[in-house]
Amino acid sequence: MTSVVIAYHSGYGHTKKIADAVHAGAASVAGVAAKLLDVSKIDDAGWADLAAADAIVFGAPTYMGGVSAPFKTFADASAKAWFSGQWKDKVAGGFTCSMSMSGDKYSSLMYMTTLAMQHGMIWVGTGTMPAQQPGAPDAINRLGGWIGVMAQADNVPPEQSPPQGDVDSAHGYGQRIAEKARALRG
Amino acid sequence: MTSVVIAYHSGYGHTKKIADAVHAGAASVAGVAAKLLDVSKIDDAGWADLAAADAIVFGAPTYMGGVSAPFKTFADASAKAWFSGQWKDKVAGGFTCSMSMSGDKYSSLMYMTTLAMQHGMIWVGTGTMPAQQPGAPDAINRLGGWIGVMAQADNVPPEQSPPQGDVDSAHGYGQRIAEKARALRG
Amino acid sequence: MTSVVIAYHSGYGHTKKIADAVHAGAASVAGVAAKLLDVSKIDDAGWADLAAADAIVFGAPTYMGGVSAPFKTFADASAKAWFSGQWKDKVAGGFTCSMSMSGDKYSSLMYMTTLAMQHGMIWVGTGTMPAQQPGAPDAINRLGGWIGVMAQADNVPPEQSPPQGDVDSAHGYGQRIAEKARALRG
Amino acid sequence: MTSVVIAYHSGYGHTKKIADAVHAGAASVAGVAAKLLDVSKIDDAGWADLAAADAIVFGAPTYMGGVSAPFKTFADASAKAWFSGQWKDKVAGGFTCSMSMSGDKYSSLMYMTTLAMQHGMIWVGTGTMPAQQPGAPDAINRLGGWIGVMAQADNVPPEQSPPQGDVDSAHGYGQRIAEKARALRG
Repeated sequence: MTSVVIAYHSGYGHTKKIADAVHAGAASVAGVAAKLLDVSKIDDAGWADLAAADAIVFGAPTYMGGVSAPFKTFADASAKAWFSGQWKDKVAGGFTCSMSMSGDKYSSLMYMTTLAMQHGMIWVGTGTMPAQQPGAPDAINRLGGWIGVMAQADNVPPEQSPPQGDVDSAHGYGQRIAEKARALRG
Repeated sequence: MTSVVIAYHSGYGHTKKIADAVHAGAASVAGVAAKLLDVSKIDDAGWADLAAADAIVFGAPTYMGGVSAPFKTFADASAKAWFSGQWKDKVAGGFTCSMSMSGDKYSSLMYMTTLAMQHGMIWVGTGTMPAQQPGAPDAINRLGGWIGVMAQADNVPPEQSPPQGDVDSAHGYGQRIAEKARALRG
Repeated sequence: MTSVVIAYHSGYGHTKKIADAVHAGAASVAGVAAKLLDVSKIDDAGWADLAAADAIVFGAPTYMGGVSAPFKTFADASAKAWFSGQWKDKVAGGFTCSMSMSGDKYSSLMYMTTLAMQHGMIWVGTGTMPAQQPGAPDAINRLGGWIGVMAQADNVPPEQSPPQGDVDSAHGYGQRIAEKARALRG
Repeated sequence: MTSVVIAYHSGYGHTKKIADAVHAGAASVAGVAAKLLDVSKIDDAGWADLAAADAIVFGAPTYMGGVSAPFKTFADASAKAWFSGQWKDKVAGGFTCSMSMSGDKYSSLMYMTTLAMQHGMIWVGTGTMPAQQPGAPDAINRLGGWIGVMAQADNVPPEQSPPQGDVDSAHGYGQRIAEKARALRG
C-alpha cells in the first residue's frame, strides 16, 4: 500500500474541513492508505507514521502572514527527521485557509514548499486550471492556487465555509498526491 | 512639491486602470505632484523623473507567476540607478492585477519589495484592514492585500473590471504613499 | 525621544549577538532610546513597549526554512495589536541568522516583511551595497542582504561567530532604522 | 529515452557554466538524453523540445532581485504551453547564479517553482545537506540551496568562478533530476 499522511493544524475547524477533503481524495485512490495527523498533538506514533509515509501533505491556516505557530512548531521539530534524511524523496504537498480571498496564502504555501525542499522531498501542486468565474463558491480552484490548495473561510462555522469549490479542490488534490506517490513508489 | 511617480506596465488596460487610480489618489494630496510612467516605453526623461521622485509606485500585471516581462526588463535596467544610489531612501510601493482572486499576486508584490530593498528604498504597504465581506466588488481591500494593492480583473474590457472596490483601494493607496513621501521629505 | 524596540528570539545566542549590535547601533543615534525584547518571554510590559515604540526590528534564527517557532508564536499573538491598529505606521525592520551562507534567510526576512505589512508598518531595509569580496568575514553586507540583515554563524559559540562583518552590518542597520524612525516621527 | 532539457539564460557565462554542469550530470544517467536550451534564443524547435521533455530545469542569473528579464520573457511566452497543458506532470527544477553569497537567489528559485506549479509540474530540489564548512569553494551545497542550486560568481571570467563546489553541486543536481524523471516516466 502507498501511504499518504495529511499533517495539518486547524485553529477553528475550517482548515480541518479542507484536511478531511484531501484525506478523502487520497483514500479514494486504489492501493492507497491515507491518515490524518493533527500536528499540534503529534506523538511518537505520529512521527513514525510520517517516517513510513510515501507522501506528506502539509496543512495550516494562514495567521499573521504565514503558517500558524503550532504548524511552525511541528516544522521545527521535524529537524530531527531532516538530520537523518527520513523524509527524503517522499512526495510533498500543501494547503492553507484564511479569511481573505488572497491575503498571504501564497506565503504559507511557499513556506511549506521551502520546508519540503530542505527535507529533499518532491513537491506536487494542484495541477488545475484557475476557475473561469473567479471566486465562484462551487468552482474548482476558484482562488487560483497552484503550489497547493488555497481555501477561504468566512467568519462562520466550518459547516458553512469554506464553500464546496474549495472542498472539491482539496478532494481532487488528495487524489493527485496519492496517484503521484503511488507512481513514484513504483 | 513632493513628487510621486507611478511606474507601471499594463498589458490590456486593467493594470492601467489601477495605475490611474493610484495616480489620482496621490495627486489629490496637497503639495504633491503625481506622474504616470509606462515603463515599457521609458526614455531618458522617464529615468530623470524617477531619479527626481520622492516616491515610486511599481505596478505590473501578474503573468505566469510574477511581474510581467516588460516590467522585469525595466527592473533590470534600473541597475544603473542602483549603482549610483539614485533611488536610495525614496518611498516605494506596488500593485498588481491578474484574473484569479489570489493566484500569484503575492509573488509579484514580493518581487517589487525585493527590488525596492536592493535600491535602499522604504516600503509603504496599503495599511488597510481586509474587507469584512471577502471578495465583495465594492469593498476596500476585498482580496486582502497588505504589501501592496491586489486587483482582480475578469476577462472583460477595463471599463468593466477590476471592480470599484479595487479602484477605491488603489486611490486610497496613492493617497497614503503621497502622504508618507511628503512626511519623509520633511 | 524616539523609541526603537528590537523584538527578537535567539536559540543559542548567535541571533542575540546580532540583536545586541542592532540595539547598540540604534542607541548610538541622538534622541533615540533603544530596548531589547526577547519575544519568547514577552509579558504585558513588553507588549506595552511595542505599542509605544516608533520602530520595531524583528529578529529570529532561520529554522527549517523560516523564522523560528517561538518568533512565529509571538507574531501570531500580535494579532491583538493588529486588530486595534497599534503598530500602524511604525517603522519596521528585520534580521536573521543561520548556519548556511544563503539557505532560507530570504524566506525569514520576507516573512517578517509580510507580518509588518499586515500591521500597516513601514519597512526599512539595510540600504547597503553588497560586499565587493563576497563572504569576507569583516565586510559590511558580506552575504548580500537588503530586506534586512543576513547573518551567518558557524557551529561554534556566539563569541566566535557570526563574524565582525555581520556585527558591523547589524550596527549600521540599527542606526539606519533609528534615523528613519526619528525622521518619520517629525 | 528519458529527456531532460536545461532551459537557461546566461548574461556573462557564469550561469552557463552551471547549466553545463547540470547538463553533464543529467547526461551521465543511463537511459537519459539531455539538451541545453538558451531561452533567450528559443525558436519553434526549442518549444517542441520542451513539449517533448520529461524534465525541464530552469536556470537564470539573479538580476535586481529576481530571474533575469530574458528568462522572464521566456516564462511569459510559456503561457501558450500552459493553456494547452503541455508541461503538465513533467519534472521541474532550477538553478541561479549571482555575485553575493546569498542575495536574492531564493527569490529567483521561488519564482521558478511558482512558474512550474502553474504549469502543473513536479518540483525536485537538490536533496543535499548543507556544507559543513559554509562557503568553502570546493564543498557541495556550500551556500545552502534546497529548492534548487544556488551558485555564486565573483566578478571574474567564468573559467575562474563559480568555484568547483557549485559546479559539482550542479552536476549532482542534474543526475538527481534525471533519475527522478526516469522513475516517474515508468
